[in-house]
Order: sequence, then structure tokens, then C-alpha cells
Amino acid sequence: MDRTMERSPLATPFPEIPAVAGVRIAVARAHYKTWDRCDLTLVTVPEGTAVAGVTTRSRCPSPEVEWCRAALPLGRARALVVNAGNSNAFTGNRGRAAVEAIAARVAGRLGCEPSDVFVASTGVIGVPLPIDKAEAGIDAALDAPEAGWRDMADAISTTDTFAKGAVTRAVVGGRMVSLTGVIKGSGMIAPDMATMLGFVFTDAAIEPALLQAMLERANAKSFSAITVDGDTSTSDTVLAFATGVGSRLASMDDDGADAFEAALTDLCLQLAHLVVRDGEGASKFIEISVTGAESDESARRIGLSIANSPLVKTAIAGEDANWGRVVMAVGKAGEPAERDKLAIRFGATQVAEGGLAVAGYDEAPVAAHLKGQDIEIGVDLGLGDGRATVWTCDLTHGYISINADYRS
Amino acid sequence: MDRTMERSPLATPFPEIPAVAGVRIAVARAHYKTWDRCDLTLVTVPEGTAVAGVTTRSRCPSPEVEWCRAALPLGRARALVVNAGNSNAFTGNRGRAAVEAIAARVAGRLGCEPSDVFVASTGVIGVPLPIDKAEAGIDAALDAPEAGWRDMADAISTTDTFAKGAVTRAVVGGRMVSLTGVIKGSGMIAPDMATMLGFVFTDAAIEPALLQAMLERANAKSFSAITVDGDTSTSDTVLAFATGVGSRLASMDDDGADAFEAALTDLCLQLAHLVVRDGEGASKFIEISVTGAESDESARRIGLSIANSPLVKTAIAGEDANWGRVVMAVGKAGEPAERDKLAIRFGATQVAEGGLAVAGYDEAPVAAHLKGQDIEIGVDLGLGDGRATVWTCDLTHGYISINADYRS
Repeated sequence: MDRTMERSPLATPFPEIPAVAGVRIAVARAHYKTWDRCDLTLVTVPEGTAVAGVTTRSRCPSPEVEWCRAALPLGRARALVVNAGNSNAFTGNRGRAAVEAIAARVAGRLGCEPSDVFVASTGVIGVPLPIDKAEAGIDAALDAPEAGWRDMADAISTTDTFAKGAVTRAVVGGRMVSLTGVIKGSGMIAPDMATMLGFVFTDAAIEPALLQAMLERANAKSFSAITVDGDTSTSDTVLAFATGVGSRLASMDDDGADAFEAALTDLCLQLAHLVVRDGEGASKFIEISVTGAESDESARRIGLSIANSPLVKTAIAGEDANWGRVVMAVGKAGEPAERDKLAIRFGATQVAEGGLAVAGYDEAPVAAHLKGQDIEIGVDLGLGDGRATVWTCDLTHGYISINADYRS
Repeated sequence: MDRTMERSPLATPFPEIPAVAGVRIAVARAHYKTWDRCDLTLVTVPEGTAVAGVTTRSRCPSPEVEWCRAALPLGRARALVVNAGNSNAFTGNRGRAAVEAIAARVAGRLGCEPSDVFVASTGVIGVPLPIDKAEAGIDAALDAPEAGWRDMADAISTTDTFAKGAVTRAVVGGRMVSLTGVIKGSGMIAPDMATMLGFVFTDAAIEPALLQAMLERANAKSFSAITVDGDTSTSDTVLAFATGVGSRLASMDDDGADAFEAALTDLCLQLAHLVVRDGEGASKFIEISVTGAESDESARRIGLSIANSPLVKTAIAGEDANWGRVVMAVGKAGEPAERDKLAIRFGATQVAEGGLAVAGYDEAPVAAHLKGQDIEIGVDLGLGDGRATVWTCDLTHGYISINADYRS
């Protein structure tokens, strides 16, 4: 975490998260920047751990993303290395060599294949990750005492102003399994693949292909439904590791799978909301619900058009019930919309309906709602059954201060 | 113009613009807001004047936009009314009635068809334009002494901080014709149809269909190649009027048409650049040239992805040669790109090439370039011959201040 940044007013406390059976966390100082904090995380998981992942859709991904993409189809993991302070993106052959060196170092120490080692990095673009620092950090982490989830959440952070983690549980085959996640990210957050780096761990036993399918569906409703600034990182990665230690079952039955997927989706949504709550400069958490669209995908695009509109975001920052800017953002989405069927709601108050302002609507509850931290905007297109919910934050002076000064 | 706003540091002086034969300008106080300034413009043009236009692609356009779209295929104009301070957008039947009343009032006084009267409005969304004020304003304008281009540029402004006009000339059929334009706009500016309201007048004689085709091509290279904040207005309109008074020719020959179109394109580009120079909070004028893309359209999309990226725009505001953010914006555009062929230039200095930073590039000229007001970013994809240039401004605290406080 950047200790020089003010803590987000939308921050929530880090929850109590118990250990996940089979997962060992260690953190170390790799000194990627001139800071005195842990910036390398090494998580080891037992043999037989299943892994799934979703990565950025950027056409210019980091070598870490390419490494994970190549290893994911094998479905098995033994370790995760996360570097903070240097994203290693756009560094050519030297960047690729750094990722290979990290995987080789860990594999050599653990006695596994390099492809069992997953790597993610976050920070400045264009500076090759120094291999010597990474290797020294890995060695230190392997010798370090076991660390906790909060330590990991801190160690993977960059411009984050608070540590982000979540936990939930599900009953699978009559046994309770736990699902735990930590995440980092506050800017350069946009679908598709909103989150910069997120990691989910569970002691459930699950086949990699099923875990992958569940993670992709959960991602669509969570990480791909949030945006801070519409910018998409070169490094976005979410990985899910299932150790199977807590629930030694050959396979999940259908009921168990449903319960597990519901819990996974809930966990991903919690983590995604934490990222929005740490959006750079954020002072308001905004939920945008779109209904009555021609399809769910159309609803999602309209929601994101509203969520990414600088004019909507600055209006919310100014606590201004400027529904005209919402009309504008619906209109520019390029999706089916009929002006004279459009209805808009702030909080519980309908402010526009049938293509014009609701005559004499009560402005007091709208003003009160906008003064709060949690803002709800509802848009009904009046065309069909398509619906989607997306989340974003407002756009404030804080965003400008952070990004006009910080060399990312 | 909003006299409470600080003049943009990128402002340029209003040029000397002579009258255009046949065009009569009048301005009046309709008192659409509680301000003491002219906010209604009435331009009359002689019988036989050809008209062409391009309007917003918003799915929620204003009734003015719908009115102009319906009248444009007829190709003939006698008058233009522009209202500032109230966009009349999203006002249902009352908004439509206001536009019809304005056209009827002017048509009655001039003895022409209502469809010969073009109407455009800019300002707050969701408040029906008061018909009584519009009619009184029209009557006052009809009785007012002739005004000049600068008066019109002032009267059509809202959040603009300086008056915007441009003039050029072309030789058509051995005679010199003039092309003149005024424009307003500073926020909610985005392709497609960047400009809020722009009006071009020429004394050339030209058939409406040819003028329309030329305006559409000129628009693609000018108004649709600029962006301030990626937001698209409900009211964007550019209209071109050709009186034919200066050049009584039955039709343009090919050479004349080429010369006229070149002049029209130049005029539109001048006007588009003025809008960027008055971008809300702008402190830098940014030109983004994309080459080596798979197609011109692909180059344009990549250019706009860079131009609309809040992280690129804040980096330029901070005078930070953060080419990593340019990589990010190329990557998120969704267009064909290969990281390891990508080259990036700031000013005349190549900073990245072949997928990584240029080793030991001289940072001094880059820093000096970024301290200036006119910033050039060059991106070469290394894939094909597609190219495009787009223009934008930086994103500063000024944008937040203007939009978190102003009720548009």
C-alpha cells in the first residue's frame, strides 16, 4: 500500500479470514522500488491443487499474463508469485526471461514443473523486472515465517489505499468448504477484466475445467461489471486455486456445484466492490441498474456507458441529480434505446419517465440520497427483459491529483 | 460565453471575418437563463440557399436534431435559429412543440415554409424551451440591427471560454468564394459528431446533395476526429449553408468542387481544433497520429482509445512522458495490435520501439516537448498502411471543477 495516499473514504475494514487448508503464504522485501515494505508474495499450495484464471483482454499483455495463459490449460498449480511495484509489461525478451527465471527458481526449490508456478506483477510499465531482486525475494520468502491474508493483501498493493480481502463458505457434499480472496487495484480498472490482480483460494475439491467455467461466469457478473476509469490494464489477472484439502471428494455433485458457484460468485462480487471502493479519488460508490433493455448484454453496455461517462461521474461527485447526463450516456451507448420510453431513478425516486422529467417530483429525497456514499441509479429502457447491474465510483479532483503526479 | 469561467490558456484570438454575401445575422436576448447577454441568434439567408448537415448519433437526440434531420433532405434553407442556455432535449411533446413554434414564427415573418427554418439549441437538458421567450426573442432579432460573426459566436456559446470562428477561401470557376464558420462547444464533446453546434456559411453556389457529401467527408476528418471527454451530446449539429450569391454558377466543375471541398475540410478542421482548445479544463492541445494500422478505421479507433484514456490525459496534464499508458490504451482498443511491433513517439523523440523502451533515449527533448502547450504523440503499429490523426486535450482539475459544479 502507498502510505502517502489518503485512505479512501469508502474503505471497509479488512475482515477476519481464517487460514485455508493447504495454502501457505509468505511475503518478502524484493526492493522493486525504494520503499521499505514487502513487495513479493509467494503462496504455495499442495500437489493436486486445481487452478483456473481469467486475464486481461488487452492486445498488449504483460509476459506474466502470457505465462499464466499458457499454464492454465494444464489446470494444476503448486505456487503463486506476485510482484508489486513493477508490472514488467512491455519489456520485450528481458521481461519474458524474468518470468521464466521466477518460475524456474520456485520450481527448483519446490521440486515441481515451472508450469505449476503462476506469476503476476503490478506497477510501472516498461521497466524489466530485475531478475536478481526477484530471485533474492523468492529465497527470502521461502525461508520466511508463514504470513496471513492481510500481509498478502498489503504486499500485492500499489496505489491501493486499503487492504482488500473477503471470505465466504459453501456446503459441498455435506461438508463446509471455505472460499477466500484478496485483491489489489484502484486505477486502470475497466472491463473486460476489471481487476488488476485478484486471487481466490478454496479448500474445496474441484476439477480444473469446472472451476474455470465457474470462474468465467462469476467474472462476468463481478470483475467485468465494474469500472473506475474505463482504462484496461496490460496485467489484469484473477486466479482461483482449489486445494481439495478440506473436502476430499472425487467430484462435486450438482447441488454442491451450485452452492460452490454461488459462493464463488458472491466472493468475486465482494472483491470487485472493494476495488471500486478504492477507485482512485473515489468519494461515492455507485450502483447502476439497467432494466428493460433488449438483452442482458445490451443492458450491460448501456450500464457501462453510464458508468464510464466523465460527465455522469463528475455530477455524482458534485451531488447533482443531473439525470440529463444519464440520458446523454444512454444515447451514446449505441444500443437500442427509445427516448420516449426511457425512465430514470435516483435512489428510490423516479426523476424521469416517458421521455421527460416527472412533473413536480420531490427533490428532497434525491438530494438526501446524493449526499450519501452509496448511490443508486436505475435506468429502465422499456423495450424488453434485458437487465444488468454495474458498479463504479465518482470522478473527483483526487483522480487527477493521483494520476497527473504518479508515474505508473 | 460564461463570463465567470477563466479563459482557456489554449484560446486563440477571434479572426477578422468579412460578411458573407446574402447572410444576415441578428442576435437578441431571449432570457433563457437569468443572464444579461444575447442568447438567441437568427441568421437569414436568401431564397435558393442550399443546406447540408450532420447531427449526433445519440439514440436520445433533441427535438431540434429531429427537426433538422427531417428538413435536410429538402436541401433548402431560409433561416437558422440558435438558442443558448436550454437544449430542450428530453422534454417530450412540449419540446417538439417549441421547435415547431419557432419554425412557424420565423416562417410567418419571412414568408417561407417552416421546413426552411433550421433550429439548434444548447444548454440544460430536460427543461422545455419556453415558447413565449423564444417568440419574443425572434421578434426582437427580426427588428435588431445586423450583427457580426463575433456577436453570433458569443450568442451561441454556453460554457465556452472564448468565441470561436474561422474563415477561408477557394477559387471556384475562376471566382473567389468565401467559407466562414462559427462553432460552440467545450464539454460533452465526442465522436461521432464531436461538435455541439457548428455553422458554416459560403457564398458559393452548390447543389445540396453535393454539399451534403462534401460535409460528411469533411466531418469524418474533423469533428469526428476530436474528443474532449468521450461523451456525446444529445444536440450535436453542424449545418452548412451555401447562398450562391457570390458565384452564380449553375454547377461546379470538377476542379472547382475539389477546391471547394479542400477549403471546406480546412475550415471544419480549424473549427474542430478550436473546440479542443476550449475543452473543459484543457491546458494542452494533443495531436495523436496513428500509422501502420491494419486500416484507416482501425487507426482512428486506436487514436480515439488513446485520446479518451483518462490515464493518458492525466499523464499529459502532469507533463509525464508515461508511454506505458499509451501502450495500455493501444492494448484496450480491441483493434489488431502486436505488442512487439509497437513504436511510440513523443514530439520528435522515439521512446519505445519493437515492444520495449528505446535504450537510453534522450529524455531532455521529451521533457521540453511536454512542457509546451502543443503535444504530439505518434504511434506506429507496424502492421499495415492504415493511418489517422485525432485531437484531444488533457484532463485536469479544471474539468472536475467545471463539471462537478455546473448544472448542465
